Amino acid sequence: MPRVTPGDESRRSPKWQARREAIVDASARLFARRGYHATGITELCDANELGKGALYHYIGSKEELLAAIHDRVMDEVMLGADRVAQTGGSPSAQLTMLGDELLDVIHRYPDHVWVFLHEFPALTGERAAQFRERRGEYEQRVEAVLRAGVRSGEFRDLDPWLTTRAWLGMHNYTYLWLKAGGRLSARDVAKPFAEIFMRGIESRSDQGAE
Amino acid sequence: MPRVTPGDESRRSPKWQARREAIVDASARLFARRGYHATGITELCDANELGKGALYHYIGSKEELLAAIHDRVMDEVMLGADRVAQTGGSPSAQLTMLGDELLDVIHRYPDHVWVFLHEFPALTGERAAQFRERRGEYEQRVEAVLRAGVRSGEFRDLDPWLTTRAWLGMHNYTYLWLKAGGRLSARDVAKPFAEIFMRGIESRSDQGAE
Repeated sequence: MPRVTPGDESRRSPKWQARREAIVDASARLFARRGYHATGITELCDANELGKGALYHYIGSKEELLAAIHDRVMDEVMLGADRVAQTGGSPSAQLTMLGDELLDVIHRYPDHVWVFLHEFPALTGERAAQFRERRGEYEQRVEAVLRAGVRSGEFRDLDPWLTTRAWLGMHNYTYLWLKAGGRLSARDVAKPFAEIFMRGIESRSDQGAE
Repeated sequence: MPRVTPGDESRRSPKWQARREAIVDASARLFARRGYHATGITELCDANELGKGALYHYIGSKEELLAAIHDRVMDEVMLGADRVAQTGGSPSAQLTMLGDELLDVIHRYPDHVWVFLHEFPALTGERAAQFRERRGEYEQRVEAVLRAGVRSGEFRDLDPWLTTRAWLGMHNYTYLWLKAGGRLSARDVAKPFAEIFMRGIESRSDQGAE
């Protein structure tokens, strides 16, 4: 999929790219605490110990920085979904792995995910379209697993679109309280959540006539 | 519970109160579209067709307006929870009703809920404390129903705190796509969600040894 990368970042040096990543991470922390609109370029400069010119050299614009934070989350989420697709297995095994992967990203990137979920309406034009497309791609991965499970009879006859939203809500919403270094690991949450969800959607031989 | 009401709104005329409610609703729409921080007093004046002085006469301050939007949601949500408590019934019946009530509020107040879920970090001091307290009160209602169900054996031996978060995420997150006038009613969503959740947490006679 083509991406908006005005600075053609892929041709930059590894050092430049590492510095840019560090700026993206530090800025995600700042946006998560103060909000995207309320955070000015001056504060971004201070947080990154850079002058204005140097900051723009790395990020292009404030909105490009926001897009980079979104990409960071979506890159990780899609990598996880790819791993699940490569591993394969039954629909319930795949959905369980998708939950593990998603909560792992939320746990490792609480600031990015906060910004991702709160500030996506600030993306405009091509960036907003790309973001919607990637998010839709992920949602369709989840939905495809649900459809496969309904087809195979492993899941009961449910509405895959609505059930995808139930699953996403249950998992995404953990960003409010699931934090790296907190009392719960991603796995501590993923396991009981998968138990609730799988029992909730599986076919039962004793209720086949429902 | 004491509330911060600097203008002592309860002693105002019904006409003043109705006008204030209308301002709260119109401002919620504006905040939901443009963000709380990005929306200035001038835009609030324009949207409400009021001068600055008149606007402040009704709302006190921009943050008080944000608190009023939060209160509007929390008032409705707590009223629903009270109705459920008065109706009583089995824990699964109560949890189902709580889901109906919550989705009904989200469906009727999409803008307020958007602002509620996105902008709560902008509340400060006493207002932030009150908001946390009311939100916590609601969460404990849900958790209490889960605990009662585990105690009675209707629900399996689950973690009530984590399960409350799963339930809240699944329901709250609908604010992204459940809209009044949209293709789905609150009930269209509440019913399949309750099915997933109840099957997910109920005890099963055939799996008593788990």
